[in-house]
Formats: sequence, C-alpha cells, structure tokens
Amino acid sequence: MTSADLDSHRNIDARADGVGEGFLSWFAERVRMSGCQVDLTPLNELRGWAFDEATGNLAHESGRFFVVEGLHIRTTYGPVREWSQPIINQPEIGILGLLVKTVDGVPYCLVQAKMEPGNLNTMQLSPTVQATRSNYTRIHRGGGTKYLEYFTRPQAGRVLVDVLQSEQGSWFLRKRNRNMVVQVDDTVPAADGHYWLSLHEIRQLLRVDGLVNMDTRTVLSCLPDSFLAGPGGALAEEGMAAAIVRSVSGEGRPHHSAAAVLSWFTSAKCRHELAVQRVPLRGLPGWRRTPEEITHDDGRHFSIVGVTVRTNHREVAEWNQPLLYPQGRGLVAFVVKSIGGVAHLLVHARFQAGLLDIMEMGPTVQCNPENYPGARPEFLDYVLRAPAERIVYDTVLAEEGGRFYHSQNRYLLLEAGEDFPLEVPDDFCWVTAHQLTTLLRHGYYINVEARSLLACLHSLW
Amino acid sequence: MTSADLDSHRNIDARADGVGEGFLSWFAERVRMSGCQVDLTPLNELRGWAFDEATGNLAHESGRFFVVEGLHIRTTYGPVREWSQPIINQPEIGILGLLVKTVDGVPYCLVQAKMEPGNLNTMQLSPTVQATRSNYTRIHRGGGTKYLEYFTRPQAGRVLVDVLQSEQGSWFLRKRNRNMVVQVDDTVPAADGHYWLSLHEIRQLLRVDGLVNMDTRTVLSCLPDSFLAGPGGALAEEGMAAAIVRSVSGEGRPHHSAAAVLSWFTSAKCRHELAVQRVPLRGLPGWRRTPEEITHDDGRHFSIVGVTVRTNHREVAEWNQPLLYPQGRGLVAFVVKSIGGVAHLLVHARFQAGLLDIMEMGPTVQCNPENYPGARPEFLDYVLRAPAERIVYDTVLAEEGGRFYHSQNRYLLLEAGEDFPLEVPDDFCWVTAHQLTTLLRHGYYINVEARSLLACLHSLW
Repeated sequence: MTSADLDSHRNIDARADGVGEGFLSWFAERVRMSGCQVDLTPLNELRGWAFDEATGNLAHESGRFFVVEGLHIRTTYGPVREWSQPIINQPEIGILGLLVKTVDGVPYCLVQAKMEPGNLNTMQLSPTVQATRSNYTRIHRGGGTKYLEYFTRPQAGRVLVDVLQSEQGSWFLRKRNRNMVVQVDDTVPAADGHYWLSLHEIRQLLRVDGLVNMDTRTVLSCLPDSFLAGPGGALAEEGMAAAIVRSVSGEGRPHHSAAAVLSWFTSAKCRHELAVQRVPLRGLPGWRRTPEEITHDDGRHFSIVGVTVRTNHREVAEWNQPLLYPQGRGLVAFVVKSIGGVAHLLVHARFQAGLLDIMEMGPTVQCNPENYPGARPEFLDYVLRAPAERIVYDTVLAEEGGRFYHSQNRYLLLEAGEDFPLEVPDDFCWVTAHQLTTLLRHGYYINVEARSLLACLHSLW
Repeated sequence: MTSADLDSHRNIDARADGVGEGFLSWFAERVRMSGCQVDLTPLNELRGWAFDEATGNLAHESGRFFVVEGLHIRTTYGPVREWSQPIINQPEIGILGLLVKTVDGVPYCLVQAKMEPGNLNTMQLSPTVQATRSNYTRIHRGGGTKYLEYFTRPQAGRVLVDVLQSEQGSWFLRKRNRNMVVQVDDTVPAADGHYWLSLHEIRQLLRVDGLVNMDTRTVLSCLPDSFLAGPGGALAEEGMAAAIVRSVSGEGRPHHSAAAVLSWFTSAKCRHELAVQRVPLRGLPGWRRTPEEITHDDGRHFSIVGVTVRTNHREVAEWNQPLLYPQGRGLVAFVVKSIGGVAHLLVHARFQAGLLDIMEMGPTVQCNPENYPGARPEFLDYVLRAPAERIVYDTVLAEEGGRFYHSQNRYLLLEAGEDFPLEVPDDFCWVTAHQLTTLLRHGYYINVEARSLLACLHSLW
C-alpha cells in the first residue's frame, strides 16, 4: 500500500454515513493485502507491445486488447476546427455486470474490490463482473472470471438492464461496453474479493473520493426506476431536495416533452459538420513520440505512458501495458435548476470524436479547465465561481483505471441561482433525471460522464 | 416517358382501390411531363467525378455528395468470414421530411412526384422534402428546396417524428438520414410537383409496384401510434386481420417484454466478432475495374456504373454520377405468426458491414436468392415455397433511386403455417408491430428494409 492509498481512502469513515463496519474493515483488509506495484515504464520497453513498422500504431503482439492509433478530426463544432490526436481503439465489447438481490425489500449489490493499474489508489469498488472479451475468453491465460455465467447465460426474465453504452469519447474510438444488471433470487455467496453491499450503502460511498469506480457508476446509472426510491425520498417536502425527488421519480412535469428532447438532440447532431478519419499514429501532427511516452507539443490534453504491474492478486502476476495519462484534473458538472418544482439538469449535446454517432448528451460542463487558457467553455466560469451553499454534490472520482493513468475528475452538482436563464444556447437542453433514466434503456444517448453524475444524483436522497 | 414507365405504372388503377381520380390524373401528367433521359456512361467519362490517384476511390471534384471507396470485413457472423467490397461513403445527413395536416380527423400528407436517375420507372412518390445536405446548401447550384423551412425551423410542438435512421447497410457506409414528420395547421398549398394525398390513399398506393419510394416508406414507418388506426381496423374481428390490428395497436400482449427484446438484441450484437476497415478502392480483392464499371469477379452482388442524366424538371438540367447497380431482384420478407391472437413479426438481428453499430433488426429474410447457389439463408426456402393463400402482401418496390440503379426488391408479408416453430435460432426474435413502432422513436434499431415492410403492414387494415 502506498501513501496515495491511505490518503484517498482515509475519508471513507468520515463521509459514508450509514455504511456498515463490516464493509469498512473488509475493504481496508483488501487494500492491505493487495500487494500491487505499478511502475512507469518507457513505451519502448513494454513487453508484448510494439509500434507497428508501417503505421507507428502501438499494439499488443497478440492483436488483442487495444491499439493506440491516430485520429484526424475536421468539424464546424467548437472553436478548434481541425486537430489530430492519439486514440485508444478497443473494438471488443466487454461486460460490466452487477448482480442484485432483494432481501426483505432492500436491494443488495455484489461488488468487488478491484485493483486497476491506472488507479491513483490502486483499489476501488467495481461491479460483480468487469471483463473485456479478451479477459473472459482467457487471452490473458489467467483464471476464469468469477460470476461470468450469470451474465453470459442469464435466466429469462431476470435481466433488468442489458444495454451497450459508450465510454470516454475523447479517448476511446467507438468503445462500448455491455452494461448489465441481473437479479438473483437464490443465495449467491460472496467470493474472495467480493462483498454484498446494500444499494443505499453504495450510494453513500459515492460521496467518498476515488472509491466507487467508473464501471460501477455507469451500471448504477442504468438501474430501472424501481431501484431509485431511497430512504430519504419521503422526507423531502420542499426546496431542491423535493425537486430532485420529483425529477428522479418522474412524478413532476418535464419542461420539454420526450419527443421535444429527442428532436432537440437530432437537430444538434445535424447542425454541425464532422469528419473523423483514422490515421497512422506515426507522424501525428502536434504530437511527439519519445522512447518513454507520446506527448502533445504544448504539454496539454494527455500523454500515452507505459506501466509495469506486479500483483499477487490477479489472474496474471506481472504485465506491461500502455495507459492514457490525462494532464491535470478535469471538471464534470451539472447545473441543476428547479423548474415548476422539478429539478432539471442542463445537458449539453457534446461532440466527441470517438463517439459512435459523434454526439451524446453530456454534463453542462465537462473539461479540463487548464486546457482553456483563452476562450472558456460555456458555463465553466459560472460553475467555478458558484458559492459553496449552491453545491449539492462535490466528489473527486477516477475514470477507468484499466486504460487511464491517475485520471481524476471533480464531479459537481450545482444548484442554479434564481438569475440563471431558462433560455439556453442551442446545444443545451433542460431535462429531468427521469427523462435521462428512460433514455438510458438505449445506448449512445448519455455519455459516461453524465451517467456517472446521474448515479451521484441518485445518492442525494 | 419510356416503356418501363408505362409498364410499371399501368397497374395503379387496378390495385389502388380508394385512391382519388384527381391524384391518378395528376401523377400521369407528371410522368408525361417529366422528360427525363438516363443513359449508362462509362465511369471514366463522368464529368465532375474522378478516381483518386492514390486510393482509386471514386469521388466528386467538389469533395461533396459521396465517395465510392473500399471496405474490408472480417467476422464470425455468417458463412463468409472475410471479404472486400466497394461501398458508398456519404457522411452528410440529409432530410426526409413529410408534412402532414389533419382535416376533419383525416390525416393528409404532402407528397412529391420525384424523378430519380436510378429508378426503373424514373418517377416515384417521395416525401415533401428529400434533400441531402449538399442539395439544400446549394452545392448543385440549383434552385432552393421547396418546403425545407418547415423542417429546418419547425415550430415547437409540431414535430411528430425527428430521428436519424440508417439506410442500406450493405451498400452505404454508416449512412443515416433525418426522418421527420411535421404537422401543420395552416393551409399549405401544394406547389407544382407536390400533392396532398390522404394517408389512407398513400397506404393503398403501397400495393402498387414501384410507386412509393423508399424515403416515403421509411418516414411513414416512423409515424406515431395515433396515425396507425385505419378504416379497416374496426372491421377485423378474427383471424390474421384481427391479429395484425392487435399487433399494430399495442392492445395485444407481446410474446417477449420490451426489456427482453432489448436484451436479446444486445446479446446478438455481442455474440459475434466483427472488424470493419475502410480500405482503398484500388486493387480491392475480388473486384475488377474497367473503364466502364466496377464489377465482382463472379458477376454477383452488384456493380458500380455511371449515368448521364438529362431532365427539364430539376434544379440542374444535366449531370453525371455513379450509381450502385444490384444484380437481380432481391427478396425482403417478414414471416408473421399469430401468437396468442397477436401478429408477431420474426425479426433477424442482421449484421451489415456499413451499419453504424454493425447490427440492426431486419426482416426474416433479406437477400438476393441468386447470390446463394449453395448454402441458403435461414427461412429463404420456407418463404419461396409458401402457398399463395399465406401471402398477405406482395409488391415489388425500389430502393433509393438517387444512389441505386434499377434496384428492385420483392416485399412479402407471409403468414406462418401452424407448423412454424415458436422456438427460433438465436439471431431471430418474435416482436409485435407496436414494439417495432416504439423502437423507431430511436435510430439504429430497425433497418431500412424492415422499416419499408412495416409501412406496408400498416397498409393492410
């Protein structure tokens, strides 16, 4: 265990009211036992990985896992009209699967303490199964994936959620994972490394920095309505708390009809011209490759680095891999406004070059502020200057630790002031949480950052 | 007018019961006046078009319209595991827009008699607006697109349908068009070339070979429930007619829940490995280019040909363009089975290399039988051998005449015999028409051939 582990997890007790002692001591023990070491390693020295002679793309010798390649973008969207960037191409569809079981009316989820090499704190809470196709078809030559059979051969009628959802569209090329929730009635014992935690406890743990991983958050965001009623819901009678209850439950009237939201989104997709072309990583304009890493000429955005991972706790004891290392801490925020007594989230039809259909609905603000020394993204300064009493959720969470190195985003839910306009720019739209939940039955509507924040919103009541 | 026109349109009177004389004489006059001539022209002689020196791709000198390029496919789906083919890359999103107006409770649609160079009969019925982005931003340097403003600046609340839908996934690379239906209350006069036809009349005309074009059919298929009640619905009390009414109206209980259908479809997408790569058209394995055309070595599938179009009836009086020329007549069929008194369509999770997310739900059978001299696609022979009394719809319709030359598909709706099994192979699923209508609020679920057939199904009552 490193000092980063200690630092990141020290606040579990302080912030996670209502989480059982059993879990806290179990997780502390998992962290203590993890015995994992991650060392930065020059890209040229990664065993099993090589730069292709013709394209310069960085790939695994087996042809599996993922490839770091180049992307060239031309667009009429946003202030930058043309750029090139490295991107992670991982065409396989993985499974993010959560087992749930209801006992005496209380839903429980089977979570896993999982080490990922890119995590700042090494170990976070993941869903029951978090497996790439390479993982579960044993390309690693490691052990089998526990509980996989509940998701690859689920019994009819027990599948609550089964939908392909995108991941980071700025860093992944058309990546999508299968988000699944499967309900079990029988007793399923928690294996070593797994733990049955109540859904309410997981939601409380979402307030702890860097604990609940991205894969858990995206699966939680897709849960159907019946899982959204929290113990606090009935208590909120007025103010923002009550407005959020109405927004999540769908009882309140939305500002825009479902058809109007879909038409707004279709219109946004058609408003801009976008051309995205896969290109060789070699000679990518604006980027330079050294034996150690691939970096942007101005030091912004991200770099591609390598790591060596040594562990006593996974299918394979030691391996090398590249990771994408974002520069600085990002900001992911929803501005929330009560309209007619119902909380509405300000979503942004956001172009991201790697998304399958180019645009998905994202949070109001999603950026690394350090990347914008000049022209600022819409609403960024409004969010940064918000007084503390308007902030209803504020936690630093990591993105996927299997692909990103020390990624950190500050996730914020922010109550809009009275003066915040109802009229918003063309690419923005006010929607209720329930409208987002309904759209999440389908893929490619809500981006992964917005899904994370929606799961966090569900933790507020 | 050519003899093909006469031949194709001679049966309007015979099959289209209940269509007003006014329309029939108006359309005959449009055909008579069209004065269009389409001549096959060698690819090497197409003005404004050229093969790129490096890639061999066939593109317009303006960089707009579309490009014929190459695609390489590797997949575990189907009997052929690897192949290359030309494909039309048209990244622009066009508008297929239909104006509707309800008079005394009867819905009317503003249709257009439109000439397309690939049509066997030159002129077909198109939606109010059928325009590529190049069209309506005036790349052609032609006249403005009539009625366009109803779709680019629709009033809030009058947009009934607004969704991106795919087109032929075997011939187009990730093409999608914006399918829109906009309701108007004011009087909108029919301009020259346009005609207000009742929805019931359009549905009757769907029984006429080669008359209602693909763009009209896909927009019609997306109409919301409220437009689906036909005058015949109330009369059907038993048998397949009543089962179809229950299937379309959503009154009948579906065999699989909505969640189960979505999970089946997600599962199908994850079952197969699919790798699709854009490659240069030059030297495409299995294909040969002559000065005239690009053909497959064994003469099957399709060729790329060129045409010269001369007309007195469009924005531009003469132009050249390539078209994709399918070999032979295709077959597009839904097997329909009454389950619990509700008609269910047997949809097929169909891989098509050009689809945005690789798979959409297609008809039970969709192929050119001549391409399968050996192993036959599932259910093809069942459909071909069906006795006449089980065929409830049988019409030859064309695909998009702006891109395909003389494409013809026989569209069939076929009642399954008692012996047809309820258990079907993994990639097939029984769904109601209402379930498909619900999914059509979203893009990329139902392929264009299945959408066409669904519109035809709506014409049965």
